[in-house]
Amino acid sequence: MSVYFEDLPVGHRDSFGRYEVQRDEVIAFAAAYDPQPFHLDDEAAAASPIFGRLAASGWHTAAMAMRMTVDHWSAQDVKSMGAAGLDELTWLKPVYPDDVLRLEAEVLEARTSPKRPQIGFLKVRTVALNQHDEPVMRQVANVMVGRRP
Amino acid sequence: MSVYFEDLPVGHRDSFGRYEVQRDEVIAFAAAYDPQPFHLDDEAAAASPIFGRLAASGWHTAAMAMRMTVDHWSAQDVKSMGAAGLDELTWLKPVYPDDVLRLEAEVLEARTSPKRPQIGFLKVRTVALNQHDEPVMRQVANVMVGRRP
Repeated sequence: MSVYFEDLPVGHRDSFGRYEVQRDEVIAFAAAYDPQPFHLDDEAAAASPIFGRLAASGWHTAAMAMRMTVDHWSAQDVKSMGAAGLDELTWLKPVYPDDVLRLEAEVLEARTSPKRPQIGFLKVRTVALNQHDEPVMRQVANVMVGRRP
Repeated sequence: MSVYFEDLPVGHRDSFGRYEVQRDEVIAFAAAYDPQPFHLDDEAAAASPIFGRLAASGWHTAAMAMRMTVDHWSAQDVKSMGAAGLDELTWLKPVYPDDVLRLEAEVLEARTSPKRPQIGFLKVRTVALNQHDEPVMRQVANVMVGRRP
């Protein structure tokens, strides 16, 4: 049972994913892509008024959310064809090592285009929450999904 | 010579960075965070109407842009304090292995808040371009920078 554009109407909601944030992974991601001191070093993070202690790069949080999304799509065989971008990406609270993240998603808009009849275009809001059910990240993505043949 | 909020007025422009996109890194990032077939496998990518051949995850492109930005900030000693999020993130063209990326940034807005007198708030548009000077990604970020003491 594959999931096509037609199976994801406006208002469709989904709750899924579990990602245990590992300290080693936080530091490795930051070292590669966001080597700001508060993502790498306990002392520098303690001195930051924003973070207070070692926190994941926001880009790492976005990447972890993408991994949960792709795993979920894969399990459901969602006919994803990529994304054009985001209307919003907001980091609401720091993400710390040992946090456990999950996602809640809702389809906000759905449209088709006569120019690209095989593709449906969805606007999907996804919120990442931590183990205290606090939202840590919110995004609104413009996603392409295959239409039912 | 550190760079504070006061040194980054509206209209300030900057051009910087050089990132050679490696095939191994494209696949490793996708395997960890965005394991969709068109980011992992040549045949699946060839079948994608969007990508045509193996292409980097958009989140990897964003991460590579962040790395160039942090390296640039670090070299200039910009007093970055993190970012609240983005108003827009658009993937304009696929990024392929062996592409060479660079960034162009412009300050769109600058404001202070009486509640947080040590922090200046900037809205910065950053465009990533490939070796053909084609824009591949555009983002507008809300960045916090320390004010001059």
